[in-house]
Amino acid sequence: MSLQLLKALPHLRSATTAVRPQIARTTWSEHIATKVFFSTTTTKATPAAPPPPPPTQPQQPVPPTTTSWGTKKQNRKVKLRSAAAEFIMSNPEIESQLAPLRERVQEQGNLVRDLKAKGAPEIDVKKAVAELKARKKLLEDKELALTPSVVSFDRAKMEDLLKRRFFYDQSFAIYGGITGQYDFGPMGCALKSNILALWRQYFALEEQMLEVDCSILTPEPVLKASGHVERFADLMVKDVKTGECFRLDHLIKQALEKLSKAKDATPALQAECEDIIIKLDGLNKQELAGVLAKYNIKSPLSGNDLTEPIEFNLMFATQIGPTGLVKGFLRPETAQGIFVNFKRLLEFNQGKLPFAVAQIGNSFRNEISPRSGLIRVREFTMAEIEHFCDPVLKDHPKFGNIKSEKLTLYSSCNQMDGKSAAQVQIGEAVASKLVANETLGYYMARIQQFLLAIGIKPECLRFRQHMSNEMAHYACDCWDAEILTSYGWVECVGCADRSAYDLGQHTAATGVRLVAEKRLPAPKTVEVSEIVPNKQALGKTFKKEAKNITDALAKLSLEEITKVEEQLAGEGQYKLTTADGQSHDLGKDTISVKHSTKTVHVEEFIPSVVEPSFGIGRIMYSLLEHSFQCRDGDEQRCYFTLPPLVAPIKCSILPLSNNTDFQPYTQKLSSALTKAELSHKVDDSSGSIGRRYARTDEIAIPYGITVDFDTLKEPHTVTLRDRNTMKQVRVGLEEVVGVVKDLSTAKTTWENVTEQYPLFEQQEASK
Amino acid sequence: MSLQLLKALPHLRSATTAVRPQIARTTWSEHIATKVFFSTTTTKATPAAPPPPPPTQPQQPVPPTTTSWGTKKQNRKVKLRSAAAEFIMSNPEIESQLAPLRERVQEQGNLVRDLKAKGAPEIDVKKAVAELKARKKLLEDKELALTPSVVSFDRAKMEDLLKRRFFYDQSFAIYGGITGQYDFGPMGCALKSNILALWRQYFALEEQMLEVDCSILTPEPVLKASGHVERFADLMVKDVKTGECFRLDHLIKQALEKLSKAKDATPALQAECEDIIIKLDGLNKQELAGVLAKYNIKSPLSGNDLTEPIEFNLMFATQIGPTGLVKGFLRPETAQGIFVNFKRLLEFNQGKLPFAVAQIGNSFRNEISPRSGLIRVREFTMAEIEHFCDPVLKDHPKFGNIKSEKLTLYSSCNQMDGKSAAQVQIGEAVASKLVANETLGYYMARIQQFLLAIGIKPECLRFRQHMSNEMAHYACDCWDAEILTSYGWVECVGCADRSAYDLGQHTAATGVRLVAEKRLPAPKTVEVSEIVPNKQALGKTFKKEAKNITDALAKLSLEEITKVEEQLAGEGQYKLTTADGQSHDLGKDTISVKHSTKTVHVEEFIPSVVEPSFGIGRIMYSLLEHSFQCRDGDEQRCYFTLPPLVAPIKCSILPLSNNTDFQPYTQKLSSALTKAELSHKVDDSSGSIGRRYARTDEIAIPYGITVDFDTLKEPHTVTLRDRNTMKQVRVGLEEVVGVVKDLSTAKTTWENVTEQYPLFEQQEASK
Repeated sequence: MSLQLLKALPHLRSATTAVRPQIARTTWSEHIATKVFFSTTTTKATPAAPPPPPPTQPQQPVPPTTTSWGTKKQNRKVKLRSAAAEFIMSNPEIESQLAPLRERVQEQGNLVRDLKAKGAPEIDVKKAVAELKARKKLLEDKELALTPSVVSFDRAKMEDLLKRRFFYDQSFAIYGGITGQYDFGPMGCALKSNILALWRQYFALEEQMLEVDCSILTPEPVLKASGHVERFADLMVKDVKTGECFRLDHLIKQALEKLSKAKDATPALQAECEDIIIKLDGLNKQELAGVLAKYNIKSPLSGNDLTEPIEFNLMFATQIGPTGLVKGFLRPETAQGIFVNFKRLLEFNQGKLPFAVAQIGNSFRNEISPRSGLIRVREFTMAEIEHFCDPVLKDHPKFGNIKSEKLTLYSSCNQMDGKSAAQVQIGEAVASKLVANETLGYYMARIQQFLLAIGIKPECLRFRQHMSNEMAHYACDCWDAEILTSYGWVECVGCADRSAYDLGQHTAATGVRLVAEKRLPAPKTVEVSEIVPNKQALGKTFKKEAKNITDALAKLSLEEITKVEEQLAGEGQYKLTTADGQSHDLGKDTISVKHSTKTVHVEEFIPSVVEPSFGIGRIMYSLLEHSFQCRDGDEQRCYFTLPPLVAPIKCSILPLSNNTDFQPYTQKLSSALTKAELSHKVDDSSGSIGRRYARTDEIAIPYGITVDFDTLKEPHTVTLRDRNTMKQVRVGLEEVVGVVKDLSTAKTTWENVTEQYPLFEQQEASK
Repeated sequence: MSLQLLKALPHLRSATTAVRPQIARTTWSEHIATKVFFSTTTTKATPAAPPPPPPTQPQQPVPPTTTSWGTKKQNRKVKLRSAAAEFIMSNPEIESQLAPLRERVQEQGNLVRDLKAKGAPEIDVKKAVAELKARKKLLEDKELALTPSVVSFDRAKMEDLLKRRFFYDQSFAIYGGITGQYDFGPMGCALKSNILALWRQYFALEEQMLEVDCSILTPEPVLKASGHVERFADLMVKDVKTGECFRLDHLIKQALEKLSKAKDATPALQAECEDIIIKLDGLNKQELAGVLAKYNIKSPLSGNDLTEPIEFNLMFATQIGPTGLVKGFLRPETAQGIFVNFKRLLEFNQGKLPFAVAQIGNSFRNEISPRSGLIRVREFTMAEIEHFCDPVLKDHPKFGNIKSEKLTLYSSCNQMDGKSAAQVQIGEAVASKLVANETLGYYMARIQQFLLAIGIKPECLRFRQHMSNEMAHYACDCWDAEILTSYGWVECVGCADRSAYDLGQHTAATGVRLVAEKRLPAPKTVEVSEIVPNKQALGKTFKKEAKNITDALAKLSLEEITKVEEQLAGEGQYKLTTADGQSHDLGKDTISVKHSTKTVHVEEFIPSVVEPSFGIGRIMYSLLEHSFQCRDGDEQRCYFTLPPLVAPIKCSILPLSNNTDFQPYTQKLSSALTKAELSHKVDDSSGSIGRRYARTDEIAIPYGITVDFDTLKEPHTVTLRDRNTMKQVRVGLEEVVGVVKDLSTAKTTWENVTEQYPLFEQQEASK
């Protein structure tokens, strides 16, 4: 996929380049033993600065507590999460190691600037940019490897839990499974649906957006206009005998890595291979074919020869209807559904701009060889917003509300200079033109608020600006919200100012003017040229074709009308091509050109689009990594600290034992929770209470109500346990559902609850 | 599509037969000028009995009210909805007209019973059933045409409003559009999402179901096992020259209708044509080809010859991955995703039965020529439940809660006897074995509760039982919730007891035993025969093949093991076929058969499945028809009486004029509504307040807050208007959001609100 494509289609970037760096980065994640960050195991390195608490998740003090069923395991202090901007700040020792790498980036950044200033040939600029990216990658890998907080994250352990408790798992596994496809089990499905509900509240409801739900099956012409049919492709090669396919960049990387690790590899060969691997991302089809040939790369599975590189379009093709004539694709993004409905939506909004349209739905990309779990899949849920506005008025009425929000911005400039990301107030960033306009800045701040609200760690979130070479020629500015995971920095939300590109493309393809109108400051007199068809004469001469001709005439641009006039004056006739491709010679008897003046009060324009685009699966995966924990000293007791707002199940009900006296209370609580619309799980199985707590922790249930012998006494009370701290309080039976409701909807905090209700140490009664 | 298929795949029925009757029924709906039911125009006929009020929608008294901006138009009484079981009861006069038709049905019903009792050949039974269905259709058409409440419903008028205010509209219209695909605009999308939220609450939450979210792209083997690859097809013919496709039954119907209306048509020919049209549904491929030939039917568009009938599979095919070797389909239903995950789900439920799994998602069917708007589309949202239970224990713990619920049941027996549907308590229906078991009955009652809660008219809802000939051989019982619309009775929810069919099919296809275990009343001693492979000898003889051989041996059934033993004893060797199709001769040196006894405490069984399956688009369309109204005496002022629970937007805020003094109040109200999570729309455009009310009525907004000059005075108050009655009350500014919240969540009714707050007649202050 050429850089040009990446420019043209920011959406697509998330399918391809955004991923390439990650795939390159697997070297790092595999070699450095998937060591990344936050964990419950201690690390000897000391962070340079004491970590400030993350803004949205207030830390509660966590003194050790004793429960009535207290075992040693439960009695432990829960470690505070390793927090704060450790990734951003580094200590002097680390900085000295990074300095030469930073210098190399800056040197190359300056070269790129120079080349562009001199107007050097595009191919030279591209090569310099490829080298710049390679150097940036080396810097970033080193940075992550050296940061003190980068301690081991055991991905396999988390994935084992996700599979075992069926958060999600490979689709059709009993049939052998399909790579890149996942089924969400009860916990994954509920988590996803809670994230989406919060998204609706944050965006659709709070910003009064128009939410739509458009078709997935899309006819070819729509995706031709958007550029996907021509350019949404990856390069692959096939085994000439077996037909096995390989994604070209992956294959070359693997082959060269193997080559450079061979016993007889000379240092020169090793350096050569490493150089190519680093630059792989910037090589074009011919250059990659050259690499294949030079190193005589064969199929890694069979040793057979490989075909020349083939461009493989990543859309799933099908046929709509039975004729086999209407080609269609599964949409590769939801955005196009919004653009083709622009006229209806503008009308729904009574013709007024700005307005924003939201859509949540599935999209599909036929990846050549998907890996990386939920990060790279063939079928995925997106939540996209298209904010339509006047191209010259990109301010935002609610910008004041968020202008003091601090974001970690990794600007294009800093990237070219080998510098780190920096914390900036979004108000300042817009004022200094670092971020192009208020609307873009507003959405960036709102994206951050949303991600932090669902539980993304603030120190693992940054906004990376596209460098001018990554960006489409029509786009003004583009920032990706990237989240740090064990796969590296993963692009999870794109936020781009796409200008008038998409509406322009569909207008050109259909002739339907996807435009808005605005009142002119003062009425304007304009000259109007129009073609006046002599309908009678046309009908007589062209019979059935006459309608096609008048239709084609109506579509002529001002420029073309001038041409018609010239030709009629000169040659006495004009050759017109109708929509069905036929040509007709029109003489002066059939058409004439009329000039007049008209007073206009409004002008038409194609609105600009600012597009925040959320990859829900990626966000969800990142969130799971960020909230995965093991109890201090017991690596087998793992759990997720998902915030109550998004936790799949809000509350468990555990009778202390299977004593039948507890049943009426259990049932009563369950009914009350249902009435309060709180998802909950009754676990009256025979395991010990500690074991049952551990099971509810595994599926991230934040609160647990235990019915014990004290419950049977008046006044009836129960214990309420907090998953994160394992502390318990004693609450009246009638009150507890209200408390859980307030906790689950973030109307109160556990800290407040512990102040309001007595801590529970041991039940008084026993049978 | 053969009747056998309809039997085998109840899901599919909703794609095909359930529709065929509707399509046949278009004759009726077209000819009787789309006259159907409920309307605001009065009808002279008097219903036989006074209509009882529908159970879930308490009728409020609706005296005329005057508003401060009261125009004559607003001053009108809103007519009570025409309610009650008018379709079920008929008056004696009507009954006398229906009697001969009823008799003809009963006569044929008895013939079918006779044939089956005698064990007549299947083909004879099938023919008799086809005739029975044809007679039933005549009866039903007549019944609807004669019922007094069948008054005109103006579908075109409603569709115009739906399009104009973008509830939904054809997809990709600017590219010419695609039939059978619709985009939901802001109002349609919100309505759908509110219906689904309520569905989740009614089913997933209240029944503590496990909700999952499975892949849409499905590999071929899964759909081979389910029977879709082989049998999910409709018959079509192609124009031999242009390739244009026609659904065969539609084409024949059209052609014969034209033929019988021709001037030179003899009465004999007319009768012949009518007879074929009525029986069309029961004809097989050969018989339909015969009809084509006999009447020399050509393409209605070009007059060209047509091909022989072709079976066209209704699934959208594509390829997964780049090799072109993995064939896949877009799922035609969501159910299979649940079945293939059965093991994981059972484990999630700690191995215990019963449990229910829910899934909401899109499915796809490549209809040959979709018509009928939202009723027949290529891409649609389903909500399916698979309730897994012990095949011998189909009682339901919560059956008691719903047993006195009355349902309109159209039993198989009544259908065969030419009788009408009847109101029956579900408890009685299960006790009398009319409905097969408690679980099925429980879901039927819950389906009814859900449909009434969203606003389906009770008198337009019935449960039709599949006749034994429609039902799969494995199914015990099957009832469809059908809703009466201007398209006739439309199947909207299927509710079937599918026994162990699906899990059995996937077990057979994969070798993975999709079973549950139950504890035996007492331990049992069983004889065990097993094959003991001599691994060393196998390895020596068969090398790499040894593993395949031991795998194949492990899969042998008890029967096969007996055969192995016999052959080893007799011929001294056994020929085994491994999974890859290779045969191997195994001698006594490599395998032996061992017998032992074992005490078992549990037994394995394949669970039964009860499946309620909701077609969300169809339900939504029916709801729109049921709630479409025009103001009495003003046919241009149309609106939807959607219940607040599902209405797309809960409240409007209308400043009386564009006086800037109103702005702070408007903004304050908007913030408060957002905080209360209430969707709302501020309309501060310049239209008169009456006009703006009418616009909010069109998009079904149930409540409107108006800010007027009295609002500016202390104590600050606003008016709150009810869409259905057009009455208004005066409420304190601080209170009004709470009142709207309670109304929107069904915590209070408008009637209560009018008792609590003063009716508003005219504002006191004015500028």
